[in-house]
Amino acid sequence: MIPPDGRRRVLIKDVFPEIDCGRFPVKRTVGEQVAVEANIFADGHEALSCRLLHRRAGAENWIETPMAFLGNDRWRGTFRVEETGRYVYTLRAWVDRFLSWRKDLTKRVEAGHDASVDFLVGAQILEEALKKAAETDRKKLSSWLQTFRAPGREKEKIQLSLADEFAAVMTRYPEDQMATPYEKELSVVVDPVKARFSTWYEMFPRSCAPRPGEPGSFRDCEARLPYVAAMGFDVLYLPPIHPIGRVHRKGKNNLPHGGEGEAGSPWAIGSAEGGHKAVHPQLGTLQDFQRLCAKAKGYGIEIALDIAFQCAPDHPYTKEHREWFRWRPDGTVQYAENPPKKYEDIIPFDFQTIRWRELWEELRSIFFFWAEQGVRVFRVDNPHTKPFPLWEWIIGAVKEKYPEVIFLAEAFTRPSVMYHLAKCGFTQSYTYFAWRNTKQEITRYFTELNRTEVKEYFRPNLWPNTPDILPEYLQMGGRPAFMARLVLAATLGASYGIYGPAFELGENIPREFGGEEYLDSEKYEIKKWDLNRPDSLKEFVARVNRIRKESPALQENWNLKIHPVDNEQLICYSKHTEDLADFVLVIVNLDPHHRHSGWVDLSLEDLGVDPKKTYQVHDLLTEARYLWTGSRNYVEIDPKIVPAHIFRLRRRIRTERDFDYFL
Amino acid sequence: MIPPDGRRRVLIKDVFPEIDCGRFPVKRTVGEQVAVEANIFADGHEALSCRLLHRRAGAENWIETPMAFLGNDRWRGTFRVEETGRYVYTLRAWVDRFLSWRKDLTKRVEAGHDASVDFLVGAQILEEALKKAAETDRKKLSSWLQTFRAPGREKEKIQLSLADEFAAVMTRYPEDQMATPYEKELSVVVDPVKARFSTWYEMFPRSCAPRPGEPGSFRDCEARLPYVAAMGFDVLYLPPIHPIGRVHRKGKNNLPHGGEGEAGSPWAIGSAEGGHKAVHPQLGTLQDFQRLCAKAKGYGIEIALDIAFQCAPDHPYTKEHREWFRWRPDGTVQYAENPPKKYEDIIPFDFQTIRWRELWEELRSIFFFWAEQGVRVFRVDNPHTKPFPLWEWIIGAVKEKYPEVIFLAEAFTRPSVMYHLAKCGFTQSYTYFAWRNTKQEITRYFTELNRTEVKEYFRPNLWPNTPDILPEYLQMGGRPAFMARLVLAATLGASYGIYGPAFELGENIPREFGGEEYLDSEKYEIKKWDLNRPDSLKEFVARVNRIRKESPALQENWNLKIHPVDNEQLICYSKHTEDLADFVLVIVNLDPHHRHSGWVDLSLEDLGVDPKKTYQVHDLLTEARYLWTGSRNYVEIDPKIVPAHIFRLRRRIRTERDFDYFL
Repeated sequence: MIPPDGRRRVLIKDVFPEIDCGRFPVKRTVGEQVAVEANIFADGHEALSCRLLHRRAGAENWIETPMAFLGNDRWRGTFRVEETGRYVYTLRAWVDRFLSWRKDLTKRVEAGHDASVDFLVGAQILEEALKKAAETDRKKLSSWLQTFRAPGREKEKIQLSLADEFAAVMTRYPEDQMATPYEKELSVVVDPVKARFSTWYEMFPRSCAPRPGEPGSFRDCEARLPYVAAMGFDVLYLPPIHPIGRVHRKGKNNLPHGGEGEAGSPWAIGSAEGGHKAVHPQLGTLQDFQRLCAKAKGYGIEIALDIAFQCAPDHPYTKEHREWFRWRPDGTVQYAENPPKKYEDIIPFDFQTIRWRELWEELRSIFFFWAEQGVRVFRVDNPHTKPFPLWEWIIGAVKEKYPEVIFLAEAFTRPSVMYHLAKCGFTQSYTYFAWRNTKQEITRYFTELNRTEVKEYFRPNLWPNTPDILPEYLQMGGRPAFMARLVLAATLGASYGIYGPAFELGENIPREFGGEEYLDSEKYEIKKWDLNRPDSLKEFVARVNRIRKESPALQENWNLKIHPVDNEQLICYSKHTEDLADFVLVIVNLDPHHRHSGWVDLSLEDLGVDPKKTYQVHDLLTEARYLWTGSRNYVEIDPKIVPAHIFRLRRRIRTERDFDYFL
Repeated sequence: MIPPDGRRRVLIKDVFPEIDCGRFPVKRTVGEQVAVEANIFADGHEALSCRLLHRRAGAENWIETPMAFLGNDRWRGTFRVEETGRYVYTLRAWVDRFLSWRKDLTKRVEAGHDASVDFLVGAQILEEALKKAAETDRKKLSSWLQTFRAPGREKEKIQLSLADEFAAVMTRYPEDQMATPYEKELSVVVDPVKARFSTWYEMFPRSCAPRPGEPGSFRDCEARLPYVAAMGFDVLYLPPIHPIGRVHRKGKNNLPHGGEGEAGSPWAIGSAEGGHKAVHPQLGTLQDFQRLCAKAKGYGIEIALDIAFQCAPDHPYTKEHREWFRWRPDGTVQYAENPPKKYEDIIPFDFQTIRWRELWEELRSIFFFWAEQGVRVFRVDNPHTKPFPLWEWIIGAVKEKYPEVIFLAEAFTRPSVMYHLAKCGFTQSYTYFAWRNTKQEITRYFTELNRTEVKEYFRPNLWPNTPDILPEYLQMGGRPAFMARLVLAATLGASYGIYGPAFELGENIPREFGGEEYLDSEKYEIKKWDLNRPDSLKEFVARVNRIRKESPALQENWNLKIHPVDNEQLICYSKHTEDLADFVLVIVNLDPHHRHSGWVDLSLEDLGVDPKKTYQVHDLLTEARYLWTGSRNYVEIDPKIVPAHIFRLRRRIRTERDFDYFL
C-alpha cells in the first residue's frame, strides 16, 4: 500500500529513553532534566529541524524545544520537570527548506559561484514566511523581500542571507507542513526528591520498649525518634504493624507451633483482632500511629509501612472471602510453600480466583487506607509473587491521587523480574548489593545499574543487611566489615538503608553456618537492644549520613565513576555534581582483615584539576588532608582504623600569598 | 484502568529478533533457521510452558513449536523457512498447572513429605485433561485417573506421576485458557540462497568490444561470459544500459561539456532514444539483452541491472512530466548538485512534487518492466537520495510478485541511513569494507555486522573497488594489496564483488593524489582491457572463488570469529559450518610491503580438535600443508608470494596404521 503522504521524508528512530517500545514511563525527581536523544534523518543532503515536545499529562499545549545536532544523525534535546506527577514527551522534525537554502548558498558563495537564482529562490521562501508572520516581524520580512527581488545588489543580498537576525526571524516561520511527528508519546513519572535521595532505617516497633521482655509500642517508637534522627535517617521503616495470626504461629528461630507465649512473625498478618487495616493492639491504636507519623515528620523522618499481601490462617479475610484462597480437595487451605519449605503461618491469596476483581479492589484499598492516615512511603513485601498488572494498577491509582508516594519493591529474585516490577511503577527497588562484595562484582553491577537503560526506570536502594539477610561478609569480617559495607551502601547509592539496631551494634551470628538468617532473629521474637554499647557504630553512621547530606554529589547515582587502583582489595570511585563544584572520591579497603595499599589512577580532566598544580583531598571521615599531584597517587588503608576514605576534592590551595594554609 | 483479565500472569518481553519494535521484518534465505528468544516469566515460582508460533504469511494455521528454557527467564525456539516469501511468527506462554504440580510433587516426595493431597489435586488436573482428550488418549487418562482416586497405592501413584509417558500425554492437553499471547506478529522475509551467498562481477558492456575504440554490445558481453564464468562469478552486474543523454554530456575524466565525440556517463540516463525502459542503441536491442540474460543463466550467472532514478536533461520524462522536476524561478531546471560540486548532466526527481503518486507509480513500473524481461537482480544507485517509504513500497510490491528478486543498495552514507535502507527491504547492501584496512577496523566493523541486531536485516556485500572507489590501499600496495583485499572480501563476506577487469588487472592510478577516482575512469569513456596480460590476477580470483564454492563455511556470515595473533599486521579469523565438518581458517598479512610472522592463538574447543593430537592445516591457495599442535602456532607470510593463507582444518591425521600419509 502506498503511504498516505510519501512526501514526509524525515525519520525519527532509536529514541532514548524509551522503555519497551514506549510501554512504560521513565522516572525522574522534581527539578531533574530529561535528556532525549534520537536518530533523525532524511533522504538526501538537506538540513533538518528537530524539536522535542513535552507537557504535563493532561495539559493542552506542547512546549517545543529545539534539539541540537550531535553528529552522525544523532539529535538531543532536554526539558526540566518541575512538579510531581506525569509528563509526556514526543518529537517532530522536518526537512528545513530555509536552512537547506542557506547552507547551499553559503557553500556556493564560498566557491565563488553565481548565486543569482538562489536569491530568487530565497525570495520565494521569504514570501511563504511573510504569509504566516506575526505583525512584529512583517515589516522586516517585507523589506528583506524587497532586497532579494531588487536587481543586482549582490553583496547586500549575501550579507543579508548570512545575517543572524535574518535566520532568527525565518526560523520562527518554518515550512513544516511535511513535518514527521514521532509516532509515540512517551511518559515520565516525576517523584519527590526523596525518591532519589533517601536514608532508611528499619526497626521493629515491638523491640523498642525500655524494659526487657515487654513489647514495645508506638509510644516507645516516639521515644526512639531522637536516636534515629541523630544518626541522620529520613525514612523509618516498620515491619507490618497489624495483628499477628495465632493459628500456626511460629516460635523463636522460625520453629513451627510456637504457641501462646510467642510473639510470632509480623508478616503472618491478621487475627480476630483485624487484618491489613488494623493495628496490633500491643503497639497501640490507629491514633497512636498517626501521632508517631506526625512526630517523625517533626524530625524530618517519614514513616514507611510494610505492605505484605498475605494472611495468617485466622485473618478475617479467610472467613469473609473464602474464594480469595485456594482450597484443596481435602478441604484444607493451601498455605505458602516453596517445596520442601513450608510456611504454615501464612496463606497466600489465590490470584487465579474468578473473584480477582474484588480481591484487587480490596488490596488497593489497603494502600489508600494507609495513605489517608498520612503514610507516604510503602515498602512492599515480595511483590514478585503477585501479578505484575496488579502493581501497575495499584501504583498508578495511588500516585494519581498522591503523586508524592514512594513504593519500595522488596523483590530478591531474577533480574528480569526485578526490572519489570520497577517498570510497573515501583519508585525504588532492593538490589543484589548484599551479595556484591568484590571490586569486580561491584563494578559490573553498578555499571549495569547506572550506565544502561536500567537507570531510567530502576532506582536502587542498597541494604547491607535486612532481617532476612546477614551476608557472610558481615558474619566474618567483624567491625571493619560493617563499616566498609556502610560506606559502600551510603556512597554507591543515593538511597540506602540498614536494619538496626542489629547493624550499628554489629550483630553477626547466623542461625546456622552457611546460612544468612540471624540467630534468634527479631522476626520471631521481641529483642532488647543495648543502644549505648561502647562499640556501637552509631557515631560512624551519623558521620557518614552527615557527609551524604552535605554532599550533593552523593545524592545522585548516574554520576558514579569507578577508577583504577592497582590492588584488587581497594575500590575507588567518584561522584560529582555536574559543575564539578562538589567532587567526592571514595576509596574502600574491601578486605576487612588486612591493611592494603595501592596507586589510584585518576583522569585530572574528570577532576577538573590543573595538571601542573597540587590539589588536596580531604577525608571527611577522619578530617585528614593529603596533598596530591598528578594522576597517580598512593593510598594505604588499615581496616582496623577506618576501612575507607571519603575524600572531598579541594582544588584551590592557598600559598604564601594567602597567609593562611588551606581553604 | 483495571486490565480485562488480571489472571493472565505471564509476560513475554525482550523478544529477539524484533526490529524497531516489530516494524520491520528480519531476513533469512531458503532453508535457514529462525531462532527466537524471549524473556518469559510470571509472578511466583510456578512452571511455565512457552511456544513459538509461525506460519507463511496468509496461511491460516499456526505451527507451534515448544521453546526450551535457557536459564534466567530466557527461552528459545526455532523454526526453519523452506520457501521464498514472507513468514510471520509470534509467541504464547502460560503458567502450566500440570508441570507446576509435578515439580512440587517431585520435591515433596524427595523430602519425604506426605503427598496424599497432591494426588487428589492431580486427579483434578487429569479430569480437565480428559475433557479435552483425543479418543486415542482417553483410555489411558481414565485409567490413570482411577489410580489417583484409589485409596492408598502411594508408591504406584508416585511412579505414575513421574512417568515420562504420563507427562507426554498431559502436555497435549494443557490448561492454557489464561495463556498470554505475545502482542505482536513479527515477520521474516525469505530470500533465495543467492541473497546470502553471491559472487559479483561489475563490467561495462561498452568496453567489451574486441576491437579498440569501438563500443561494445550485448553480443560482445556474451563472448565475455566464459571469461567471467571461469573466474567463478555468479552475478554479472552491468552499469545502466539505457540511452545516455546528450545535453551537458560529460567528457573524459568528468570534464564538463564533453561534446558529440564523447561516450558520456551511463548514469546520465535518457535521451530522444528513450529512458529507463529503453536500451542504448549501441548495446543492441531489448531482444539482444534478453538473449544475454539467457546465455548468462546457462553459465549459472544472473545479470544484475543498475537502476538509477535520475535523468539526463534530455530524458523523455523532462518533457512529458515537467512537474516531476524542480523548476527554478529563472525557468531553468534544478540539476544535481552538492555545492560546490555540480552534476549538470543529471537532473534529480523532485520527490516533493504534488504529483508524487504518479511519479512513484512510474518508478515502480521500471522494476516491473525489467523483471518481466527476466532480470532478478537489481543494483540500486544512491537509494539514500530518494524517499525511504518509496523503497519499502517498491521492494514490497516487486517481491510480492517475484519473491526471488535481489535488491542491492548502493548507499555509501551514514550508518543509520544504510541500516534503515536495509530495514526498508534491500536484500543486500554495500558496506564500508573499502575503507576498513587495519586489524582493529576490520574486527570492529565485522563485529558490528555479525554480532549485533544488524545481522538480522543487513546483508553486507563487500567490494574492494568500484568504478567510483579506488581505495588508497590499492593505489599504494601493488599486486599484494589486490590479492589481500580480494581474500578479505571473499572470505569475510559470503557476498562480495569486484569491478573488473580493472581489479584483476591491478588498475591503480588515481585521477589525483589524495582522491579515490580512477584516472581515465571507465565511467566517462570506453576502455579496451588486455585480459590476457601475464600479470592478471584472473587465475588467483578463480582459485579464491572455487574455494568459496567448495566451502559451505564461507557461504555464511554469522559464523565469523576473529582470533588473536601477536602481530598487528596479521589478521586471523575462522568460519565453520555448525557441525564443524567444514572449518576454514584465514590469515592475511595486511602489510603489502613486508613479510610478517606471528603466533596464532586458537581455542581448540572451537576447532573441535583433541588437545592431545596433532592436526593439519591445508592451505587451499597454495596446497601447502602444515602440522599444528596445541592452541598456539607460528605463521609467516610473505606478501610478495601470497599475502594470505586460506587453511582448511583437517583433524584426522593418518598414522603408520593407515599406510598412507594424510587424509
